[in-house]
Formats: sequence, structure tokens, C-alpha cells
Amino acid sequence: MANIQQIAQKAGVSVATVSRVLNNATSVTPQTRHKVEIAIKELKYEPSMLGRNLRNSESRLLLVLLPSISNPFYNEIINGIQNTAIAKNYNILLCETDSKPERENIYFNMVKNKLADGVISMDPTVNMQKLNELAENHPVILCSEYEEGGSIPYITVDSELAAYQAVKHLIKLGNERIALINSDEKFLYARLRRAGYERALKEFNLPIRDEWIYHTKDLEFEHGVQAMRMLLQSEEKPTAVFAVSDTLAIGALKAINGGGDTPNPIAVVGFDNISFSSMTNPTLTTISQPMFKMGSLAADMLMNSIKGDRVESIVLDHELIIRESTMG
Amino acid sequence: MANIQQIAQKAGVSVATVSRVLNNATSVTPQTRHKVEIAIKELKYEPSMLGRNLRNSESRLLLVLLPSISNPFYNEIINGIQNTAIAKNYNILLCETDSKPERENIYFNMVKNKLADGVISMDPTVNMQKLNELAENHPVILCSEYEEGGSIPYITVDSELAAYQAVKHLIKLGNERIALINSDEKFLYARLRRAGYERALKEFNLPIRDEWIYHTKDLEFEHGVQAMRMLLQSEEKPTAVFAVSDTLAIGALKAINGGGDTPNPIAVVGFDNISFSSMTNPTLTTISQPMFKMGSLAADMLMNSIKGDRVESIVLDHELIIRESTMG
Repeated sequence: MANIQQIAQKAGVSVATVSRVLNNATSVTPQTRHKVEIAIKELKYEPSMLGRNLRNSESRLLLVLLPSISNPFYNEIINGIQNTAIAKNYNILLCETDSKPERENIYFNMVKNKLADGVISMDPTVNMQKLNELAENHPVILCSEYEEGGSIPYITVDSELAAYQAVKHLIKLGNERIALINSDEKFLYARLRRAGYERALKEFNLPIRDEWIYHTKDLEFEHGVQAMRMLLQSEEKPTAVFAVSDTLAIGALKAINGGGDTPNPIAVVGFDNISFSSMTNPTLTTISQPMFKMGSLAADMLMNSIKGDRVESIVLDHELIIRESTMG
Repeated sequence: MANIQQIAQKAGVSVATVSRVLNNATSVTPQTRHKVEIAIKELKYEPSMLGRNLRNSESRLLLVLLPSISNPFYNEIINGIQNTAIAKNYNILLCETDSKPERENIYFNMVKNKLADGVISMDPTVNMQKLNELAENHPVILCSEYEEGGSIPYITVDSELAAYQAVKHLIKLGNERIALINSDEKFLYARLRRAGYERALKEFNLPIRDEWIYHTKDLEFEHGVQAMRMLLQSEEKPTAVFAVSDTLAIGALKAINGGGDTPNPIAVVGFDNISFSSMTNPTLTTISQPMFKMGSLAADMLMNSIKGDRVESIVLDHELIIRESTMG
């Protein structure tokens, strides 16, 4: 990266003048300012905002973008990121985007302005175009959600295979009418989990019916409750449900428990293995993602990328955890 | 606040020289650097790290310190903070301290270096001495946990009164052996909730017994499970339990459910009203804190303090929400 001396040389002015321009001092003539700004642009110089640290432009801060902290899925991943980052003398800042692009901008600018050394994005709603632009000049890692065929390194699990195995488990238990509680299919993980659900049903010649597929607005418990209530009103009630997150599955369990005299208990499988999932009654069968490990490796990938190393994408193993919610 | 011109005047050097010192340029003699550093110290000048924004030293970023995002209690508060901050064109950064002081330092330095305009601390483990030092020159608000007799404005609920009411509810239901699952009493809220618990028992001449008071290491579910298992082994089993957080209460419910043929169901009251507390089976009776409002008002208090207004502390109302866990 260009330094302040090179800017000064290029612009034909003193280092002090460059400094004055960067500090917006009023004592610089418009012509001089213009010359310096052209040199800054040509050399792609990005001034360190940590003023005193010009010689060492590292901020030792990593940004972690997430859509919302209210899904406990992110907690363990963040613990993994923190643990690994701290051990290497980095700190992390959590940036909750609430799926709003204007919030992303401020965080991306922090990286451009060297207030942070890189980004781990866990936000499925992130503006991929902007993230790709940022990734051209700054270290960026995608965690959990990723871009198919994209150039940003990612770490994830095989959502299609995991969903296929979850639904196959329900089929092996004798279920033939299996519902899907999915989130918005604009997200890759939602499309992949639906594909796995359909693959399992097709393999066993079971029906895929629109009235058994419910899309929720987000992953809050309450949306799982609503989805299950709708499914319980289908003409032919499903005997089992696969929900694409534990939060939705726990809401579904609540709707089933709260339904009074349901003739058959309905089997439920979730996805994530959040800590709540073993606190419910019945406890929840789910796909366990290695969240701590995912976070820890994502941090390693980012720190390697900051060092300038080439970083490969990683697909981690998952596991089906069988608990009471599929034990009839 | 002093500006760079005043530093230059005080030190008897040019603005460019001050700038060179701030930017750690090598072309400054030790004597000159020393003169500038003394002027900086005497005028309490804190250079804006947002270089180009010297004339407008606002970062429009608010820091929110929290011990851990894994307690959902913080989620709704953060939603309230975000909502209000964003409406006034501020963004927030979440800083998870994991109760480690070295992490606090980096966040405090962000404020000192003008990378953030102020701090809302929700961390009961925060180093109050350092926070008080920061608060001498920077806007700081305490949210939920606060310092008795301290000078930093806070927003909270009346933990003593709320605990008293929770325990009185258990007494009115006929319970005479009431246990307390508390967290570490180094925290003010833990001391206050214990005081409320004891006040209710004393008022009704009921026993306060050490074997019915269990202290957990933190607020994770698992610690509630462990605490309840211990309490179930007491010689005289309690018939009811008050836990100082919903996470601990939900763990306690799990231990009770999982205990096989417990002769009497044990009544449980939690504290916080996290969203999961209405998803458990049985649903949880709890003290509802107005978390969204608390966050929203905390953000208002901080933004008013940034504007230079004097800010008063606020104690918000709480509410006892009666659900299935105390319905026998």
C-alpha cells in the first residue's frame, strides 16, 4: 500500500501538506488540495484513521456482520470467532445489520477507512455486490451463508445433504406426510434445504404438496408457531415436520403441544442444535452444525487473509441429533 | 475541546508540525515532539481519528457493551437501542466483553479516540473505576446494571421490589419452602434480588435456609439445570423456586421435568420475560422487564448526553406475568 511519503512525492508537495489535506486544514490552497487528492486517487492510498498508527496500519479489529442477534444460532459461532481472534490478539466488533443496507455501508466504510482489518459476514441479506467490491481490496470471509460460484472464501455446512438426512430420518420412522417450514427462499440456505427435503421425498415416492410447505418471514419462535398452526389446518394433516431452524422448530413444538387433543403426536426435526433445543419438552431432534468450530475456523481464515495468505473455502461435517421430538 | 490550531499556538510550532507529531512522522526532532506532546496533554486534546472529519468530530457511532450475547435478555434491549439510535442517524456497535477487562480497554479507547461518540454499558462485570474515568470526559449511560450512589446516569428496574413480588406470589400460592437460584452476588442485581427474596420470606415468617440458596457461575441454561438438581437433593425439598433470570428458570424447569416421578410439581418463577419463556412446557411465570423501552430510553439518554444535556436516571416499572409454571 502507498504511504504518505509516496503521496507527497507524487503530488510534488511536502509530507506536512499531505497531512494538512488529510486533516482538512483550511490553510491549503484549492490547487494544492487538488494535486494531493489526485495523487491519493492514483496511488489508491487509504489513510489510516488511527492517526498515530500510520506506520502500523493494523487496527487489530475484526468486524462480524450478522442480521440479528436474536437467533441463538449465531451465539456459538461468535464464541468461536472471539476465542480464536483473542488468542491472536485481535478483537471483534459485532455489527447487527437488521437486514438494512444503510447499516452495512457504515460498517464497510470502517474497513475501507482502516478502522477494522477485515470482515466475517454471516448475514444472508448482505448486499453481495457491495461485499464483493469490498473484498477486492480487503479481507472478507463468508460464514454459514455463502455465494454459489462467488469469489469470496466461505465456511459452511452442506445444507442440502443435511436436510435430505433430516427428512430421510422422518421417512424411516414411517411418516409419509412430511411438511416443511422454510424461511424466505431468496436465501441460499433456504433453497438448499428445500432441495434436500424434496430429494428425500422423491427418493421414497412421497408427495411434495404446496399446502405442506410454509414460508416464514423470519426465524423468530413466533413464526414457527404460526406456521405450525397453518399446517395443522391442512385438509390432510402432516404427521411430521422439518423446520429449517431450531427457533422455528421450537415454535412448531409449542403449537403442537398447545393444540389440545391432537390425535397423533407430530414428529419435528429442527436445524442448528442451539442450546435451547435440549431444554424444550419434548427435546428437539435436530441437525447439529459445528458452530463453535465454524466460528473459530472463520476467524483463522480471516486472519490468514489479512496476513496475505490465499484462503480456501471449507465445508464442515454436520450430524443428526436424535431426541424426543421424533420418538413418538 | 481544544483544536489543532490551539495546540500549535501553545507549543509555539506550526499546525503542520502538530500534524506531523500526530501522524508519528520521523521528520520531527525529539524536542519539538516533546513540546507538542506537553501542549496536547495540557489542553486535553484528543485527536479525532476520523482524520478527514476534524471539523466535525462526530462519529455517529454508539458503543454498546454487553457481557455476552448468549443471554436473550439483551436482545430486546438492543432492538430498542438500535431502533431509537437509527431514527436519529446513529449506528451502534455491539461490544461483547465476555467479562474480560482487556477487551473493555480497546472499546474505551475507541471512545477516547473519537471513533465512537459514547457508550451504553449493560455489562455487570465492567470495571467501574475505568468506566467512571471515561465518563468524566465522554458520554456514558448504564443500562440495567448500575452503580449505587455513582455519578453515571442509569436506566433500570427495581430489582428488589420485583423479587419481593415474585416470591410473595409463590407464598400466596401456599408455598412455605422457597428456594432461590441466584447468580454471583458480586453483581448489584443479584444482591438486590436476594434482598427482595428475603424480605418476602421474613414478612411471612418463613425460613431462609442456606441449602435453599444456590449461586450459579453464570446465567446459561445448564447452570439452572445443575442448580435445580442440587436443590432436589436437599433433605427438605423446596416446593417452589425463584430464579433471578429466565435462562436459569428454564434450566430449573428442565431438571424438574426430567426428574421422573417428582411427588409434587415445583412452582418456578423467572425474571426477564425473554421470548423463549412462553415457548417452554409449562410456560414460565416471570417478571417482565420493559426491555425494548429500556433500550430505547437508554439510547435517548446517551444521545442527549452527547448533545451536552444533563441526563437524569430512570427506574422503569416491571410486571409479574403469571403462566403455567406456577399453576400447579
